[in-house]
Amino acid sequence: MDRLDAIFSPESVAVVGASSTPGKVGHDIFENILKGGFQGTLYPVNPKARSVLSVRCYKSMMDIPDPVDLAMIILPPRIALKTVDDCIKKGVKGIVIVSAGFKEVGGEGAKIEDEIANKCRDAGIRLIGPNCLGVINPSENVRLNASFSARMPHKGNISFISQSGALCTAVLDFAADRGFGFSKFVSIGNKADVDELDLLRYYHKDPETNVIMIYMEELRFRPTFIEEVKEITSGDRPTPVLVIKSGKTAAGAAAAASHTGSLAGSEAVYNAIFDQSGILRVDTVDDLFDYAVAFSARKIPAGNRVAIITNAGGPGIIATDMTEMSGLQLAKFSADTDWNLHQFLPPTANFNNPIDVIGDATRERYQNALETVIQDENVDCVLMILTPQSMTDAIGTAEAIVDTYNNSTKPIVCSFMGVVDVSAGVKYLQENQVPVYRFPEDAARAMGKLYDATQWLGRQILPEYDLTFDTKRATAIVDLCLAEGKTVLGEDDGKELLACYGFDIPAMKIADSAFVAGDIAEEIGLPVVMKIVSPQILHKSDAGGVQVGLKTREDVETAFTEIMASSKNYNPDAEIKGVLVQKMVPPGQEVILGVTKYPGFGHLLMFGLGGIYVELFKNVTFRLAPIGRNNARRMVRSIKGFEILDGFRGKPKADVETLEKLIIGLSAMVTNHPQIKEMDINPLFVHEQGQGATVADIIITFDD
Amino acid sequence: MDRLDAIFSPESVAVVGASSTPGKVGHDIFENILKGGFQGTLYPVNPKARSVLSVRCYKSMMDIPDPVDLAMIILPPRIALKTVDDCIKKGVKGIVIVSAGFKEVGGEGAKIEDEIANKCRDAGIRLIGPNCLGVINPSENVRLNASFSARMPHKGNISFISQSGALCTAVLDFAADRGFGFSKFVSIGNKADVDELDLLRYYHKDPETNVIMIYMEELRFRPTFIEEVKEITSGDRPTPVLVIKSGKTAAGAAAAASHTGSLAGSEAVYNAIFDQSGILRVDTVDDLFDYAVAFSARKIPAGNRVAIITNAGGPGIIATDMTEMSGLQLAKFSADTDWNLHQFLPPTANFNNPIDVIGDATRERYQNALETVIQDENVDCVLMILTPQSMTDAIGTAEAIVDTYNNSTKPIVCSFMGVVDVSAGVKYLQENQVPVYRFPEDAARAMGKLYDATQWLGRQILPEYDLTFDTKRATAIVDLCLAEGKTVLGEDDGKELLACYGFDIPAMKIADSAFVAGDIAEEIGLPVVMKIVSPQILHKSDAGGVQVGLKTREDVETAFTEIMASSKNYNPDAEIKGVLVQKMVPPGQEVILGVTKYPGFGHLLMFGLGGIYVELFKNVTFRLAPIGRNNARRMVRSIKGFEILDGFRGKPKADVETLEKLIIGLSAMVTNHPQIKEMDINPLFVHEQGQGATVADIIITFDD
Repeated sequence: MDRLDAIFSPESVAVVGASSTPGKVGHDIFENILKGGFQGTLYPVNPKARSVLSVRCYKSMMDIPDPVDLAMIILPPRIALKTVDDCIKKGVKGIVIVSAGFKEVGGEGAKIEDEIANKCRDAGIRLIGPNCLGVINPSENVRLNASFSARMPHKGNISFISQSGALCTAVLDFAADRGFGFSKFVSIGNKADVDELDLLRYYHKDPETNVIMIYMEELRFRPTFIEEVKEITSGDRPTPVLVIKSGKTAAGAAAAASHTGSLAGSEAVYNAIFDQSGILRVDTVDDLFDYAVAFSARKIPAGNRVAIITNAGGPGIIATDMTEMSGLQLAKFSADTDWNLHQFLPPTANFNNPIDVIGDATRERYQNALETVIQDENVDCVLMILTPQSMTDAIGTAEAIVDTYNNSTKPIVCSFMGVVDVSAGVKYLQENQVPVYRFPEDAARAMGKLYDATQWLGRQILPEYDLTFDTKRATAIVDLCLAEGKTVLGEDDGKELLACYGFDIPAMKIADSAFVAGDIAEEIGLPVVMKIVSPQILHKSDAGGVQVGLKTREDVETAFTEIMASSKNYNPDAEIKGVLVQKMVPPGQEVILGVTKYPGFGHLLMFGLGGIYVELFKNVTFRLAPIGRNNARRMVRSIKGFEILDGFRGKPKADVETLEKLIIGLSAMVTNHPQIKEMDINPLFVHEQGQGATVADIIITFDD
Repeated sequence: MDRLDAIFSPESVAVVGASSTPGKVGHDIFENILKGGFQGTLYPVNPKARSVLSVRCYKSMMDIPDPVDLAMIILPPRIALKTVDDCIKKGVKGIVIVSAGFKEVGGEGAKIEDEIANKCRDAGIRLIGPNCLGVINPSENVRLNASFSARMPHKGNISFISQSGALCTAVLDFAADRGFGFSKFVSIGNKADVDELDLLRYYHKDPETNVIMIYMEELRFRPTFIEEVKEITSGDRPTPVLVIKSGKTAAGAAAAASHTGSLAGSEAVYNAIFDQSGILRVDTVDDLFDYAVAFSARKIPAGNRVAIITNAGGPGIIATDMTEMSGLQLAKFSADTDWNLHQFLPPTANFNNPIDVIGDATRERYQNALETVIQDENVDCVLMILTPQSMTDAIGTAEAIVDTYNNSTKPIVCSFMGVVDVSAGVKYLQENQVPVYRFPEDAARAMGKLYDATQWLGRQILPEYDLTFDTKRATAIVDLCLAEGKTVLGEDDGKELLACYGFDIPAMKIADSAFVAGDIAEEIGLPVVMKIVSPQILHKSDAGGVQVGLKTREDVETAFTEIMASSKNYNPDAEIKGVLVQKMVPPGQEVILGVTKYPGFGHLLMFGLGGIYVELFKNVTFRLAPIGRNNARRMVRSIKGFEILDGFRGKPKADVETLEKLIIGLSAMVTNHPQIKEMDINPLFVHEQGQGATVADIIITFDD
């Protein structure tokens, strides 16, 4: 038995701080549990009252003569702390602290919250809150409404986790209005103990939960989060997880010195986490409900080929547009389907997709069309549109849809347009768990989201590359740098570290005079590239500190003088260590790799096409380290413009395999050396297939 | 008096084809007018009935003893045609044909529709339909529900034009559910006479219409459409126009030979028309209603600085996110505002934007906060969020908002979260025309759409350039080409035409041998570019038919041989006219200009950054010709990556003024020579500011 059962399905509940004064939280919550028809036993606790709402009241937890599973605490911090001690003595199994005034106000409140959390942990008690709305479980044999909300939702198979209490009330109202049911509903507040991951695990195991919805302000990230949630969203019995994430911050990004740092806001971190763990992100509460309804039926399409059946042209066109905008495509019917459709549809019908069964379509005509297309091998899912017209039989058509639906594994989504005329049909579909929407575009978008899950579940998983890195040498290099107080490495001193993780860096040496530069160039071989070396000059091009394609000794000597002059001019205070002379990198596609450390989450890896693509279009993708081959592969392939690496317009393909291996190397590097704060490898030249890749510039920053 | 008044506000209506049989269209429409409380006189016409729904029936139009303003015809095509003759004799002023079976089925139906349209036009009668749902006007002194829909909507100030009859019913149902009112409502069906532009003009003049919503499948485009609608959306008393456009087709795009043609689908045409005429496009019916509610209040913000007031943190964060995603920003309050807020808000409140008045906020606290921020000069508009909590006074707060709202020109949008607990407040706001939404993200998105209108109304309008083109010479060139049967011009024969419209083309000649190529190169000056000339080889690079940067006579001669060989290899059947030797174009930013002719609409102009941007990212923008300086300017500035032309990262600015003039030249060229079917100028090199631009390659196609 899970310890959270004591919170979601208790046999007895004590409300500590229960009150007889309407409008007080301690009154409302007690009343809501009592009137909600709780199937267990309820004990009000209040030293000053004889009874609350006619129920005999106890002076303290200790006075309750029976065992108590769950204590709901509605008391200010100091008294709450004492009550927690009583709860421990009493042997309660779960605690929910509704009251505010804890960590969110800081000071003593924060201290008491920590104390309470520690006590609960030591006692093996799970704690929800403080500063939360409470817990709801509408299941027949529990019927617990331990919340502010007077309204007990219907029973359904969707479970909800909210960080915001205020949103909960609105969501419950909205759900009631849409006839939407819940399995479990919780507001987690300050997350002193129970957090998102605990609840995701619990809901995933819950046979009454088919979909999980989360309203998240900030995630309490744990290192195992991605791996555990990946198992939830794509393991043996996957549970879809939908999230609304609000609250963007620019923290850390504004002051970043690297490209990666300036591109990697908290949005990038969250999107990476959601992508890697298979959580589907949505933008609005409307969408959250629309998609949850679609997922709650536990059917997802095998592919993206949609059949549309409608009794009106216009809505069919809208559905077609939104189908294509949602990443789906219209199915092309087999000859059999076409032949069958001609047997019962009138000649004025449209036999191609979207099928128009015409305004006077009866139940039978809809049913025949649906039965025909759903058996077509070229159809993965069906979108049914019904508009109320004179012959329309909304309830009959709904019954026909439910019949077919129950006998097929293919998902069906419906749009019964209009509210009143079609409401009996809508209700019948809802009761039978067939997703139904008011407008066809909503139905099509929901189907598109189902197909997102199809792609996630069907993602290609290849065996890991067999890579070895020289971790020992790398550790020595990092330790030496830190010992010497070097916190910024350029390519002259960073190349050794990168080499340990499989990166190729062209031969190079630093020159301190034009003559030495000429010697170096002849030694490593012309043509060469030359770059200023100064810890204060990070964007070397802007300083006129870079010259490329130098083909003769004379060119090299002139370049040395020019680079020194313009760099001094750019920043007269810069400490200049010389000019790096580097063998010119063979041609290849410019890409950027980068890393930035995100406090509380770890290292965020970035990949993008280099040059103007990253600087202007900010066309980059992120993953949270550590990652392996499959995430590296998806990173590279998800970038807009991947075609450029994949042989666009007859150009040779780039060495994408090496690129993937280097991303894995980068991930290993920051995982092994967490002192790395930021890194840009920009550009990395990826050569033709089989020819590897060469680093052309590096900045690595360590923690101060 | 407008002739459409006879249709929207008739004093007398004849229903020809009225029927006593429930379920028949002729019955339902008659019943809906009768029971809807029509304020004029109603005459059923049916040769076989003595009365319909107890109302004395007439055998024909001619038997009605009184004048008739509007005839609703529900009859099959041939009988409808005869009835139209009767209507003309009778002197009716407007006709609505509801029945189907006309142009949409082709054949005789189409012929009869044309005949009816011609007769009406000759008689000065306006005609709506055929194949439509009808007309509704809920105004007290009219109350006309001449439609299929049993439900008469509330009176409001939003007017609706729908092409799809089926959608109308759903929209009316949906509107009833949301308490949404209409001013005029029409389904236009086949548009035999009255079309979108007629109705836009009529609605714009209607004092009872504040916003126009259109559901469009395809537009009947008229050459004056853009100019007239621009006047409607941004003239003296602008009326916002919102459109849902569905029905994308790939017609014409698939087979196109030019880049422009392949990028310019019908979506590009419609988006160009909407952009140029100030029509705001939306994606879903939900959005259409959300935005219409916001616009119906006839207040738009002066700028994009939003103040948010909330009694709960989470929804405030959601609103902040969506505010920023909608192109708005959070206002920074003045010191006065800050001081004032501190006078009445509790210390635990949040005084910065979004202002959190805390869960126990009363009506007074909301009102004080609203009054304070709305008077701040740094605030352009306010978003009010109310969540139901124990002290919340939804109706009182609504009253306070309405008070402030009526005394300010700044728009306010509200989100009263939850359905039941806040419904009295929501109703009060709706009755007083204050836009109110269920979720804060919807309110923020609606405010963003209002700001789109602000930007449209405030768009910069500069005087036209004084440009002259050599139209006479250009006409002679085009005539000669057509006379010679030349339908495709490359740069050798197209350069003269482009030169007439201000384009610079580098010196060039065609060589038919390696030796001649060398001579030409020396004559026009090295370095040169060389390109194959063949009507069958349009994408010359793909054929190995281009070499650039040829610096010596030897290079030129070798290049000639190589180009000839690889082009013959690429297409052995191609007719090869030689190799063009062209002076190398000085450096500049590559852009693409293009044109494609769109049947029924005219020439669509395209601009984009060249090379990989257009080929891979399809990052281009369109306008329908003719355009002047201001549209050319907005085209150039609207492109993603405009920064590249505008001095990105310290690079010199490109000659954007010349680019604008060349776009105007292109527009003039296709307007003067409508035989031009498609054109690519790709690339055009735009040099540094003041240095002009040079065409590097051209394809022009004429109509066959």
